[in-house]
Amino acid sequence: MGGMTYRDAGVDIDKKMAAVGGIGGLVRSTFTPGVLHDLGSFGGMFSGRFPKHEDPILVATNDGVGTKVRTGVRAGRLRGLGHDIVNHCVDDILVQGAEPLFFLDYFASSVLEPEVFEEVIQGIAEACRNAGAALLGGETAEMPGVYEPGEFDIVGCIVGVVDRKAVWPRGVAAGDALVGVRSDGLHTNGFSLVNRLIERDDLDLTVDPGSLGESLGDALLRPHRSYLPAIRAVREHLDIHGLAHITGGGIQDNLPRVLPEGVGAQVDRASWKPNPVFDFLIERAAMDRDEAYHVFNMGCGLIVIVDGEKAEAAVSALGEAGEEAWVLGRLVEGEGVAF
Amino acid sequence: MGGMTYRDAGVDIDKKMAAVGGIGGLVRSTFTPGVLHDLGSFGGMFSGRFPKHEDPILVATNDGVGTKVRTGVRAGRLRGLGHDIVNHCVDDILVQGAEPLFFLDYFASSVLEPEVFEEVIQGIAEACRNAGAALLGGETAEMPGVYEPGEFDIVGCIVGVVDRKAVWPRGVAAGDALVGVRSDGLHTNGFSLVNRLIERDDLDLTVDPGSLGESLGDALLRPHRSYLPAIRAVREHLDIHGLAHITGGGIQDNLPRVLPEGVGAQVDRASWKPNPVFDFLIERAAMDRDEAYHVFNMGCGLIVIVDGEKAEAAVSALGEAGEEAWVLGRLVEGEGVAF
Repeated sequence: MGGMTYRDAGVDIDKKMAAVGGIGGLVRSTFTPGVLHDLGSFGGMFSGRFPKHEDPILVATNDGVGTKVRTGVRAGRLRGLGHDIVNHCVDDILVQGAEPLFFLDYFASSVLEPEVFEEVIQGIAEACRNAGAALLGGETAEMPGVYEPGEFDIVGCIVGVVDRKAVWPRGVAAGDALVGVRSDGLHTNGFSLVNRLIERDDLDLTVDPGSLGESLGDALLRPHRSYLPAIRAVREHLDIHGLAHITGGGIQDNLPRVLPEGVGAQVDRASWKPNPVFDFLIERAAMDRDEAYHVFNMGCGLIVIVDGEKAEAAVSALGEAGEEAWVLGRLVEGEGVAF
Repeated sequence: MGGMTYRDAGVDIDKKMAAVGGIGGLVRSTFTPGVLHDLGSFGGMFSGRFPKHEDPILVATNDGVGTKVRTGVRAGRLRGLGHDIVNHCVDDILVQGAEPLFFLDYFASSVLEPEVFEEVIQGIAEACRNAGAALLGGETAEMPGVYEPGEFDIVGCIVGVVDRKAVWPRGVAAGDALVGVRSDGLHTNGFSLVNRLIERDDLDLTVDPGSLGESLGDALLRPHRSYLPAIRAVREHLDIHGLAHITGGGIQDNLPRVLPEGVGAQVDRASWKPNPVFDFLIERAAMDRDEAYHVFNMGCGLIVIVDGEKAEAAVSALGEAGEEAWVLGRLVEGEGVAF
């Protein structure tokens, strides 16, 4: 028997180095003036001076896009997943008022397929440029036996900065209005159920299954929406008390994270119509509607909290900034979210 | 047929919330004065003021521990994997001179097993406390169909800070001495091959396969060594020109990352004896020795670059700081690494 090489064990270091080397231009295209390193160093370097901030606070989060990766693989549509991971992270720190500084990605699979990796990184680089976040670092791992064949996972970590006086939430109170902002579909939540349905019913992602007005793949895979441009545009002339990013757990789990003790929410589900894809999924899965509101964003990807008298002004300002917004409910004395 | 719930699809949001809620005390135990948020907010918040630094630079990296997770799962020894991911990241930014500020973890599996998750987070929290890094955030994902049953992945992201004048490498030149620092074994590299061997030969991790002086599991799973305490101790009175963290790709791929144009390295393999576990693996796999030096750290986890005349002083200082160190070679005019 011949000797064993690392390639025999399922890991090809040279192939990995070539794939990583090939994305240098993409990575560099995201660089902002804060970036202080060149490619190939152990860690990315970013200026820690924030002269425009009186009292700078770093805000950091990390996340994956869940099993949306499986849906993307199934449809052979991967670039949007790169937008998903970046925009999800951007929105997560936006709710605390932070502007993105830099992003790091992790891409792992059973066997590295360079063209898959590159397509995802293309999407990541595009979304980083859109957000003004430098792609400061990343890691690519081949992990035979950990990942199912053909599947991969993407993880992102973002760091942003906000001035202490601009941190949200601030001043959230009973009487405030809740303004909903339309999502672009499922964003990155609920895909384990979607994948189960696709398998069970052998759904064709390339056709409109009825009343979506687009193919099922288009409806499902539209990337997570970044609310950064709109919030940047309105925050200067609208006194926002807080934002809630509606992800896994829905409004029910996410809105209370920005409410002070003794403040609850009344949400009027009749105030908006979920995107058609949600009705399609609920019907197909014979899913309980309350359960659906706990799993999906149901068309509301962000909640903007403003003074009760500013509700209509917020709706207009967000509309001018390109978002579909509506008065979703209000804050009351109490606890939790009532529908 | 009844309706489908998210739990039917393999994801139990309530179980996840309970598991994540249960680690609150552990997470809080890592908090340093820089931490500005409480648990449950969307992003972690950390002070962006660095009054002790003239020109602060943030250094960030992210990484996984590769298929060492599989070896840990097989042996039922998970806590060390938490130390692995943190220490790997700590060492990666240490080579640029950075002190850790905060760390974020990502834990994903096919199905969340709360006791597995908690054991890993225990290790992460311990290693964060040891390094003075706040565990600022994290994400836990259940991804049926992406991960193989029983397997999981851990990803870490770390952000540290260094003053511009203290960034390594600085002043690396031909004539400098290379000082090797002993590793604690494989650290987090080479495990795809290890796992292949374990499967092929049905190796028992609980016994000493011959001459290790400890069980195979102990030798393989000892966590990645953090060189932070030793480098903190010696950097004040030893003029370090640069550090290289020896990970995947070995000395051959990692040392050149800190060498300037026109400078190569001569490494004397006879200057140290690899830990016994490397000889065991090479023999078992009938592996080419050069290949082994490209896959494993072979007993050298860190290289410290100092002025040629400071080689012995560096060896002593590192020895006093608790590290086994030796003169490994020197820098010469040229390119690449010659053995």
